[in-house]
Amino acid sequence: MNEEMSALARAVRQASFRLAATDSTARSALLTSIAEALVAGKEMVFEANRADVEAAKKDGIAEQLIHRLVFDEHKLQDVVAGLRALAEMPDPIHRMLRDTELADGLRLRQVTCPIGVIGVIFESRPDALVQIAGLCLKSGNAVLLKGGIEALRTNQALYEIIRGETIRTAFPAVDWIGFLKSREEVTEMLRLDDLIDLIIPRGSNAFVKYIMDNTRIPVLGHSSGICHVYLDRTAKPQMAASIAVDAKTQYPAACNAAETLLVHSGASEALICACRALKTAGVHLKADLRAAAILSADGIETASVSEPDYSHEYGGLTMNVHMVDSLDEAIDHINRYGSHHTDCIVTEDAAAAAHFEALVDSAGVYHNCSTRFADGYRYGFGAEVGISTGKIHARGPMGLDGLCSYKFVLSGSGDCVADFASGRRTFTHINRMEQQS
Amino acid sequence: MNEEMSALARAVRQASFRLAATDSTARSALLTSIAEALVAGKEMVFEANRADVEAAKKDGIAEQLIHRLVFDEHKLQDVVAGLRALAEMPDPIHRMLRDTELADGLRLRQVTCPIGVIGVIFESRPDALVQIAGLCLKSGNAVLLKGGIEALRTNQALYEIIRGETIRTAFPAVDWIGFLKSREEVTEMLRLDDLIDLIIPRGSNAFVKYIMDNTRIPVLGHSSGICHVYLDRTAKPQMAASIAVDAKTQYPAACNAAETLLVHSGASEALICACRALKTAGVHLKADLRAAAILSADGIETASVSEPDYSHEYGGLTMNVHMVDSLDEAIDHINRYGSHHTDCIVTEDAAAAAHFEALVDSAGVYHNCSTRFADGYRYGFGAEVGISTGKIHARGPMGLDGLCSYKFVLSGSGDCVADFASGRRTFTHINRMEQQS
Repeated sequence: MNEEMSALARAVRQASFRLAATDSTARSALLTSIAEALVAGKEMVFEANRADVEAAKKDGIAEQLIHRLVFDEHKLQDVVAGLRALAEMPDPIHRMLRDTELADGLRLRQVTCPIGVIGVIFESRPDALVQIAGLCLKSGNAVLLKGGIEALRTNQALYEIIRGETIRTAFPAVDWIGFLKSREEVTEMLRLDDLIDLIIPRGSNAFVKYIMDNTRIPVLGHSSGICHVYLDRTAKPQMAASIAVDAKTQYPAACNAAETLLVHSGASEALICACRALKTAGVHLKADLRAAAILSADGIETASVSEPDYSHEYGGLTMNVHMVDSLDEAIDHINRYGSHHTDCIVTEDAAAAAHFEALVDSAGVYHNCSTRFADGYRYGFGAEVGISTGKIHARGPMGLDGLCSYKFVLSGSGDCVADFASGRRTFTHINRMEQQS
Repeated sequence: MNEEMSALARAVRQASFRLAATDSTARSALLTSIAEALVAGKEMVFEANRADVEAAKKDGIAEQLIHRLVFDEHKLQDVVAGLRALAEMPDPIHRMLRDTELADGLRLRQVTCPIGVIGVIFESRPDALVQIAGLCLKSGNAVLLKGGIEALRTNQALYEIIRGETIRTAFPAVDWIGFLKSREEVTEMLRLDDLIDLIIPRGSNAFVKYIMDNTRIPVLGHSSGICHVYLDRTAKPQMAASIAVDAKTQYPAACNAAETLLVHSGASEALICACRALKTAGVHLKADLRAAAILSADGIETASVSEPDYSHEYGGLTMNVHMVDSLDEAIDHINRYGSHHTDCIVTEDAAAAAHFEALVDSAGVYHNCSTRFADGYRYGFGAEVGISTGKIHARGPMGLDGLCSYKFVLSGSGDCVADFASGRRTFTHINRMEQQS
């Protein structure tokens, strides 16, 4: 057992109760102060980041990862703008969801509140630290943060600015943010189910699956993103092509990039048009026999696909092509092989789109648009702490709402259940919310 | 591996997709049909129940459990009324939570949907089978039900009526309900995390804890109910007494019964008044030294309390009494030893009540009323499938809302992210919900 880590978690938990009781003004003021302090202290952060980037280059880390690691003036402006936007947003907690008069003088309110203590483990981008800390602070959640080891110096500098502002402004919950440095601390964190309410892991599939399998703390996130584009019988070939290309190639490493193109057997023209465009965009196609025959007749070469390919996330420029004979067969394929993330139907048939939307068991069900739209920013949530493929609590991109729980607050004047059990008093259950609006 | 059990779960999962697509009318019609069929087939159920009760008596099962096992005309009328009420309620699914124009022609809707397949394991009361099945059907969830072995004949008879009506009325998702008979099937069910979305266990603390520790499927419920009544400095003695007696004795075996009476050191009169009333109601008191001294001076005898008692759920007529020197000390005690279920402050001081409500980390935070109100019926939810002490997804009594998730439905006309990334198009994020209301 790591004593230091559990002492930190206990301090953060203790702070979480005070944080939950702060009003919106106090939390927004701190968000604004942090934004200002980041601007004032940017040189310290840039310097730490240069050291991280240099070390990463020395270690031969891939160019793409180094690109994500860089924290420069542009990234700073982004996170500062994000914090200022959060400060302006309405308070997600202390919001009334229900107001019922249970009986004369007995009032039940259902009020949003923070979840409590959230453990977030994130990948190399240091800007994620500021975004996640901002979302947690705005929603009144205390947070334990663990970033990638390659960004340790940058993350530490960012954390110190946030922690420093918390102390300088005498914020009432000083320990609301905790910073973890080692993998051992993560292992210990996963054991602290009495101190931590939720874990949000962001990283590789294997890593997220490891977290999900090794803690009793609820975990929200996704271990894989196996998204589909289905070209229905009435799909417009040009639209099919541009959606398939965007969904596959606009950012192939993203979880919302598509891995499989499903095509109705009556949509050969759309199949050919989409696959030609994908080939042109540099995509390697793995097709089943029927699709391969049609494509080959048109001079489009494909490799052969095997069943395990349908549950594989390529994360790069490879795509499966599979032919189905009906909309229902496409839906069954998606529900069986997909990861319940985001799936799209391309069709001119509104009834088919409605059927697809009703039956596909995914966080995002799309009609005539790219799966790449599945993202908290694009959805207008301001930011996201992660994307959940589960159906318990938040589903899809998780913004401030996903970081909230609620309490039932009941106020009376000595009310006892015995009086209702005996029939001396009766429940009225009058909805006071409806009457207000 | 139990092949029969996994085949059943697969059939129920397959049905869950069709069920999710049914409209409110179809589900409400089936609820009404089941209510009628239960009335028509009641003699079969009563006969099965007589056999269960007789066998239970022969096995020497406690009188209280036999009382819960009985399914008679009165229970039948209750469950039939419950089903009819559910049929009349508004549809909890297909409800729009958000409607945003992301960009010109690109519309995002967040729409409620069922969770999918829910496994419910419940105790001896056979009426619970009908209530839970009704809540699941209304919310479009397929369900795997496992009742207590002592109610097997009654549960089987009730299940057969529900299944029979599903077939007779040609309901489009025939396998929406599955019935488990053995403990082995429960063990197998806990393994099927690819087929089952949520487990709701209802039963003894040890049993619920066993379930929570032995499955990767999300579990909602509570393993213990350690509730508190705190008498603040300004508590009215008479009110303190009646709330303490109701919270402890109105139904001592319930999870929302109180286990510990916390008393401010400046509230001696309330302490004496409450403890005298508790003694009169037959409650055995275990007090700390300071409380014991005051009570003993007034002729009220107590046993001594030890620290482990504070985290023990008696479930019977025993109660801890602990003195604190401040409201914050009471809050710390509750957050430390309680089970985050339901806790009450008795006070005439509105600021103290607000502080308590903000800082106590429980599903129910009450002011001047008994903890026994924590219940789906009393809250006006119609019924409950369980009470959750977790903060992820539903918290407190779980009714229809707790059985729903949501999907993001995005509709466009060929929209691609590349156009936004390049700056050719921009997001508008116009809230169309606000404009409607």
